[in-house]
Amino acid sequence: MAEITIKDIAKQCGVGVSTVSRAINNHPDINPETRKMVMRVIEETGFIPNNSARNLKRTDAKCIAVLVKGITNPFFSDMIRIIEEETQRNRYALVLRHVEGSEDEVEVALELEKEKRLRGIVFLGGRFNHTREKIRKLSVPIVFSTINVDIPAGDGEVEFSSIAVDDRLESRKMTEYLLEAGHRDIAFITERPEESLGRKRIDGYREAFANKGVPVREELIRYVQDDMDHFSMENGYATAKKLLESGERVSAVYAASDSLAIGACRAILEAGRRIPEDISVAGYDGIRMGEYYNPKLTTVRQPVEEMAKKTISLLLDVIAGRQEHQQILFPAELVVRESTAERRRA
Amino acid sequence: MAEITIKDIAKQCGVGVSTVSRAINNHPDINPETRKMVMRVIEETGFIPNNSARNLKRTDAKCIAVLVKGITNPFFSDMIRIIEEETQRNRYALVLRHVEGSEDEVEVALELEKEKRLRGIVFLGGRFNHTREKIRKLSVPIVFSTINVDIPAGDGEVEFSSIAVDDRLESRKMTEYLLEAGHRDIAFITERPEESLGRKRIDGYREAFANKGVPVREELIRYVQDDMDHFSMENGYATAKKLLESGERVSAVYAASDSLAIGACRAILEAGRRIPEDISVAGYDGIRMGEYYNPKLTTVRQPVEEMAKKTISLLLDVIAGRQEHQQILFPAELVVRESTAERRRA
Repeated sequence: MAEITIKDIAKQCGVGVSTVSRAINNHPDINPETRKMVMRVIEETGFIPNNSARNLKRTDAKCIAVLVKGITNPFFSDMIRIIEEETQRNRYALVLRHVEGSEDEVEVALELEKEKRLRGIVFLGGRFNHTREKIRKLSVPIVFSTINVDIPAGDGEVEFSSIAVDDRLESRKMTEYLLEAGHRDIAFITERPEESLGRKRIDGYREAFANKGVPVREELIRYVQDDMDHFSMENGYATAKKLLESGERVSAVYAASDSLAIGACRAILEAGRRIPEDISVAGYDGIRMGEYYNPKLTTVRQPVEEMAKKTISLLLDVIAGRQEHQQILFPAELVVRESTAERRRA
Repeated sequence: MAEITIKDIAKQCGVGVSTVSRAINNHPDINPETRKMVMRVIEETGFIPNNSARNLKRTDAKCIAVLVKGITNPFFSDMIRIIEEETQRNRYALVLRHVEGSEDEVEVALELEKEKRLRGIVFLGGRFNHTREKIRKLSVPIVFSTINVDIPAGDGEVEFSSIAVDDRLESRKMTEYLLEAGHRDIAFITERPEESLGRKRIDGYREAFANKGVPVREELIRYVQDDMDHFSMENGYATAKKLLESGERVSAVYAASDSLAIGACRAILEAGRRIPEDISVAGYDGIRMGEYYNPKLTTVRQPVEEMAKKTISLLLDVIAGRQEHQQILFPAELVVRESTAERRRA
């Protein structure tokens, strides 16, 4: 049977195509009775308007799930928006699922596999420390995006793709920049080294000091509080406040995320110190707020758009058998804005 | 058959309960062989560990969907987090679904109804202008949360609940505060009055001027650009920049969201004007960033936590037949921080 078109509906109703269109789109300029009649015909014929609802139905069997850890981190907002655009552009439906810290994301993914005809899964953000046994349970291709995976890939046993930046390298570059600006007392606000993300960024920080032959002041490595979100402004504020109250000599604060850095800024301003005149502040991620903050935030910008696009194109290529799984590292960019400056000589 | 417990597993494996627990939680302090053995027994017995995975399975048939418009707006991040907590606390599973501007959210909801055993739907954020016919297709209870619904409720034909603040009243209060601080040239950055949210907040702005007997300078009502997200920092920046470049006399900028206000701050600072010494800035919503911004942002704080909790408790009450549908308005709070001040006399 030929597909029903909007013209068929118009003909059957004895109205113009534009009237059918107005009825479908709830346009105010249509007689309610006419609208009702048109909608009845549409329902009877099973006509599906050519809009997203149609795409959704068509792609019912093709669906990608994105499991997000830390959805309140603004860094993920842009990632999700672009992932969603790319997914829809490729005529896949997207299921977005926030994973709480207390939840087992593989179990969540297994549930989704049951209920939906899933073709692929993106794990976005946070940390992933499940065993190979666990991952092997998942039957569809997986891409880890901006996530730290604690298992080696590509041993022929467990296959997955990953998209990330080289956290150790980028963290080293930021620290080198601060050292070259004359700073020595560079506090680092970060997750603990037990967290893979924390470990890599701390390693980079230490490397920069070692390369420069400057000893690390261990008391300036400050771990975020465990009783609140690790990458929140609240945590950056609380951790920086403690640091400042400790009386330690500090001329720069480098934080492992922009949200932490913005929290630190607030603590510094409240302590009556100026940024960057008294204390320089640098972040990591490149969230939009950094451009709008006052002062504008110096940061390590992850290429959010490219990473999000590659996440989906790689996943679709693997699903289609056009590509093997890959581990891809993107270069990040050191963006120097207003929140950092040369260390003032006393 | 009695439910299998962690003790049964421990007994069958010949290990202690704590070892089983370590195996389940991927604890590093366990022999890999032991772990493998424990996991095999767990799989064989069908034992489900007492964690969220278990809750998820139990509540498989009871599920709530949250359809979010404008997930990139930071105002919704907190709402979603609390809604998710409340949903899980009540042993319902939550499906979070971002709705694009181009998507028909009722179609999305109908799809979800098919695939999941949905018990209720929350529409969060944005604007909802579907017809009664459309809403009636949905078979489960609906709560509109912080959303502007363009249809009257409770006529016996279409039933739904809604949770919101009184946008007109709260917008009037903010405008009154600015007028009382001596400001007359109060620019307003907002959505167009064709958008229901824009209309209500503009009505409030006008009411405050009328009550005070001060004429509104129409040229100071500035609509956000349609070619970008309506409630984004980018849009606030672009709209405020145009305003400042127009050369109109302005002593205060009031924006219909905090994200718009932060964008406006950036434009003002770039123009070499000080906040609040030269221009006061006020927002709306009460996002967290407002507390961390420099200067701290004056705003209308919506009671996010209470609204999110009520959204879920009301929905569950309606599902259980304990409550009729209700339209609830929450009071917002005028929060005066550092970004506004008395108008300086020339």
